[in-house]
Amino acid sequence: MWLDFSFQELFGLERRLSDSTADLYFDTISEKLRTPEFLPRTLYDRFNLEVLATTDSPLDSLADHKAIRESDWKAKVLPTFRPDPVVDPEFAGLAENIAKLGENTREDTSTWVGYLNALRKTRLRFRELGCTATDHGHPTARTANLPAPEATELFRRVIAGEPDAHQQELFRAQMLTEMARMSLDDGLVMQIHPGSARNHNRKLYEQYGRDLGADIPTPTNYVDALRPLLDQFGNESNLTIILFTLDESAYSRELAPLAGHYPCLRLGPPWWFHDSPEGMMRFRELVTETAGFYNTVGFNDDTRAFLSIPARHDTARRIDCAFLAKLVAEHRLVEDEALQVAQDLTYNLVKKAYRL
Amino acid sequence: MWLDFSFQELFGLERRLSDSTADLYFDTISEKLRTPEFLPRTLYDRFNLEVLATTDSPLDSLADHKAIRESDWKAKVLPTFRPDPVVDPEFAGLAENIAKLGENTREDTSTWVGYLNALRKTRLRFRELGCTATDHGHPTARTANLPAPEATELFRRVIAGEPDAHQQELFRAQMLTEMARMSLDDGLVMQIHPGSARNHNRKLYEQYGRDLGADIPTPTNYVDALRPLLDQFGNESNLTIILFTLDESAYSRELAPLAGHYPCLRLGPPWWFHDSPEGMMRFRELVTETAGFYNTVGFNDDTRAFLSIPARHDTARRIDCAFLAKLVAEHRLVEDEALQVAQDLTYNLVKKAYRL
Amino acid sequence: MWLDFSFQELFGLERRLSDSTADLYFDTISEKLRTPEFLPRTLYDRFNLEVLATTDSPLDSLADHKAIRESDWKAKVLPTFRPDPVVDPEFAGLAENIAKLGENTREDTSTWVGYLNALRKTRLRFRELGCTATDHGHPTARTANLPAPEATELFRRVIAGEPDAHQQELFRAQMLTEMARMSLDDGLVMQIHPGSARNHNRKLYEQYGRDLGADIPTPTNYVDALRPLLDQFGNESNLTIILFTLDESAYSRELAPLAGHYPCLRLGPPWWFHDSPEGMMRFRELVTETAGFYNTVGFNDDTRAFLSIPARHDTARRIDCAFLAKLVAEHRLVEDEALQVAQDLTYNLVKKAYRL
Repeated sequence: MWLDFSFQELFGLERRLSDSTADLYFDTISEKLRTPEFLPRTLYDRFNLEVLATTDSPLDSLADHKAIRESDWKAKVLPTFRPDPVVDPEFAGLAENIAKLGENTREDTSTWVGYLNALRKTRLRFRELGCTATDHGHPTARTANLPAPEATELFRRVIAGEPDAHQQELFRAQMLTEMARMSLDDGLVMQIHPGSARNHNRKLYEQYGRDLGADIPTPTNYVDALRPLLDQFGNESNLTIILFTLDESAYSRELAPLAGHYPCLRLGPPWWFHDSPEGMMRFRELVTETAGFYNTVGFNDDTRAFLSIPARHDTARRIDCAFLAKLVAEHRLVEDEALQVAQDLTYNLVKKAYRL
Repeated sequence: MWLDFSFQELFGLERRLSDSTADLYFDTISEKLRTPEFLPRTLYDRFNLEVLATTDSPLDSLADHKAIRESDWKAKVLPTFRPDPVVDPEFAGLAENIAKLGENTREDTSTWVGYLNALRKTRLRFRELGCTATDHGHPTARTANLPAPEATELFRRVIAGEPDAHQQELFRAQMLTEMARMSLDDGLVMQIHPGSARNHNRKLYEQYGRDLGADIPTPTNYVDALRPLLDQFGNESNLTIILFTLDESAYSRELAPLAGHYPCLRLGPPWWFHDSPEGMMRFRELVTETAGFYNTVGFNDDTRAFLSIPARHDTARRIDCAFLAKLVAEHRLVEDEALQVAQDLTYNLVKKAYRL
Repeated sequence: MWLDFSFQELFGLERRLSDSTADLYFDTISEKLRTPEFLPRTLYDRFNLEVLATTDSPLDSLADHKAIRESDWKAKVLPTFRPDPVVDPEFAGLAENIAKLGENTREDTSTWVGYLNALRKTRLRFRELGCTATDHGHPTARTANLPAPEATELFRRVIAGEPDAHQQELFRAQMLTEMARMSLDDGLVMQIHPGSARNHNRKLYEQYGRDLGADIPTPTNYVDALRPLLDQFGNESNLTIILFTLDESAYSRELAPLAGHYPCLRLGPPWWFHDSPEGMMRFRELVTETAGFYNTVGFNDDTRAFLSIPARHDTARRIDCAFLAKLVAEHRLVEDEALQVAQDLTYNLVKKAYRL
């Protein structure tokens, strides 16, 4: 559907893709991509984008972001703080990364306190370049809130390269709570994207390395996993944590009740495999009655395909409006309220949730 | 939706609630609540109620129930036996409560046998005041069927205040089986409402105590959990156990197959977070093909808001009828059969299931 | 619905079944069953069947299959290799069955190597009589890929009758991987049907024995369970493994992503409790956007009721077409593509998946 949309709306192709039109498609696309109207900045305007965010390692210099800001291009392209390379013990080279983080920030990251300071400083560096959010893609949603001595000792093991599987998970869990604590200070919005079994295809992984698409969702618990973090910060209305899921069984059972209760929680849009018409409709059907519309954050996509952006947002708007139309047709919502909700889901809630 | 229904149908408010009509709403409601037609007994008649049930501690004197029965008000207001305060080791003051139960029943509740006798006597006391059902809101659906010496020893530990988390859970599990055994004798219908993580918000709990709404559903297993009880009593057609769930993934996977198989099991209506239009429709779609309509018990609500009763039953009737209408439109059910089912779901099945 | 279809379409009964038509039904059915047009071979033609498959123990002589092939009846009735009696340590008489398998194949099945050879030979014997598939109904989808010495030792314990519950499960897990290895050699398609808690009704089981219908679905994990097998054979495009489920929560979370990724995996149709209009529709809605239509295998039924075959396939075709019609109506699929998919789901994909 995204391809069909792009072919038709962006490239003006009106005949269907088939073996007899393959050349036409190839030639048309090749030709158009060479035209000025397909330059990224032109498309940014044509797509009517207000904000585009990247995800970046704490070790990244963000030089490209600086360059954009210092250029005459007035687009809003923001970094997002994605700390995996310095908080996930399963990330190759974690100890070296943490040492490098120390050099970059002039903090002694061989200590727990210095490490936290280094993260704090790096977040501020991101903020200065427009960053409003962090992003956390852990295998589970587990959080922890260890006493300082235990956290210190755990950190020591992690950078010594000795953690077992339990300690790896515990360290990631502890770091989610630390990130929440820092978010309360610096205002960055947290995004938690748990529940993917990464690099599931062993041979693909051995031959080509990580992040090649062989990621399979797993059953994901939120109600117990998030408890340590929520015990500490759940009632903070200045904190915003946006939860995503790959496990749809959690929508009505855990996520909607949690987001309906805790002031800091919001539900992110259907993600990855579920970012699709049926998936988006299930999301609204399963969460709205418990969490309402206003504990969700509208739609955002995580595409790496620039040309798919309009198609993805178009799909989200159509599905949300189809859901609203059903409520209106069944007299569960009044039409002018539905129009307001439609606008909020499309635009206002996104800006508010991400503090844009 | 419930509020809209109540405003319009009960208070006659025809303009929409907004900042400009807030005073009108406040004044109208205040005024009407002072009129005789909003007295509880008048509303009981106006709502066309046949039965209203409360849930009561085994330590409750049921004096109010007696007073109603001895009054000239001919309503059917029944107690329901809710034994949490004397069977749940996590309930504050359990040992004192069990001692008090012994005083009330003149049984030696320091022994396992005396404790069971005290429960039996209390159930009879409830029955004499019209009680037809018991209600069990455990964290899980786990049941156990221990040999008498093990049950005796477990009880000893529980009243000594020494049980660990495993023993607490095991005692609740054992008590579900004991309750089923007593139900076979005295005919009380069992309701099992498992799967809520209670008091999830730690700060709310520390400041204000239990039962303040911070309850979040958890994944709930029935197929293994109920096995010990079903091994013993599953085929008893004189026993009725009504299962509820907060975990919708169990509807088609576990609950409908269990209720379709075991003569003693029935499925309760969508509960709590799922007592809503989408939730009710999912319930019928997910259970009907395996469990049928006649292993469900129609609709009952657990409201504490008296004025919401008509709205809740109206919603349930509409959704059930919408589901039936779809079956008729698709020629899966003949219209006159659908009419009969509609009537049974609304009225007959409820009376039968709860032995009213 | 299946009964209504059979009454009307096969027996020509046009009045509804009720107490007043019960005799008419009984007499009509009794009479028709005595006519030549209700003989199995005539019905096989009337139902327009191309293939009928049985499931058979490796110890079965397949004499009936031979008799059919040597007869003048040109039907395609095929055996399916169902090895439970010789691979499941919980199957009564496993050791004796394995010994008998050795006698039948002239292999020393007291050794791991001889046992595997005996299975290999038996699969070839099945293949010679037209078998194209194997069938595995384990309690879970767990697989294992043990080093040879560990597998040898595990096998020794299993035939010595000493395995504990963990080893029983591990042996079944190892055997799924062995079966996949053999399938790569001999081309038999694997079907995995996990997730049923068998013989759940203890009293029924004690009185009448196994396989009496008291089977209840359980939560089923695929993403971790299949990993050892997929690590070894997941990328083999010559291998076909068809996955079934009784746990619908796995459709969008695990099964569709797995089938979308691994070349060897396909999704079987909704099975058992879910082989129903609502269940079939949920299957398409939950898997199509991630796995597509062409990682599914069309419809097959596992009926023991010969007369229900047309009703079951008719239902599957209607639901698949209803799903396709919705996609066409919403402009998500072009009509002529939908027509092609409908034909593939009904006929072509089945033949291809099962190598018929």
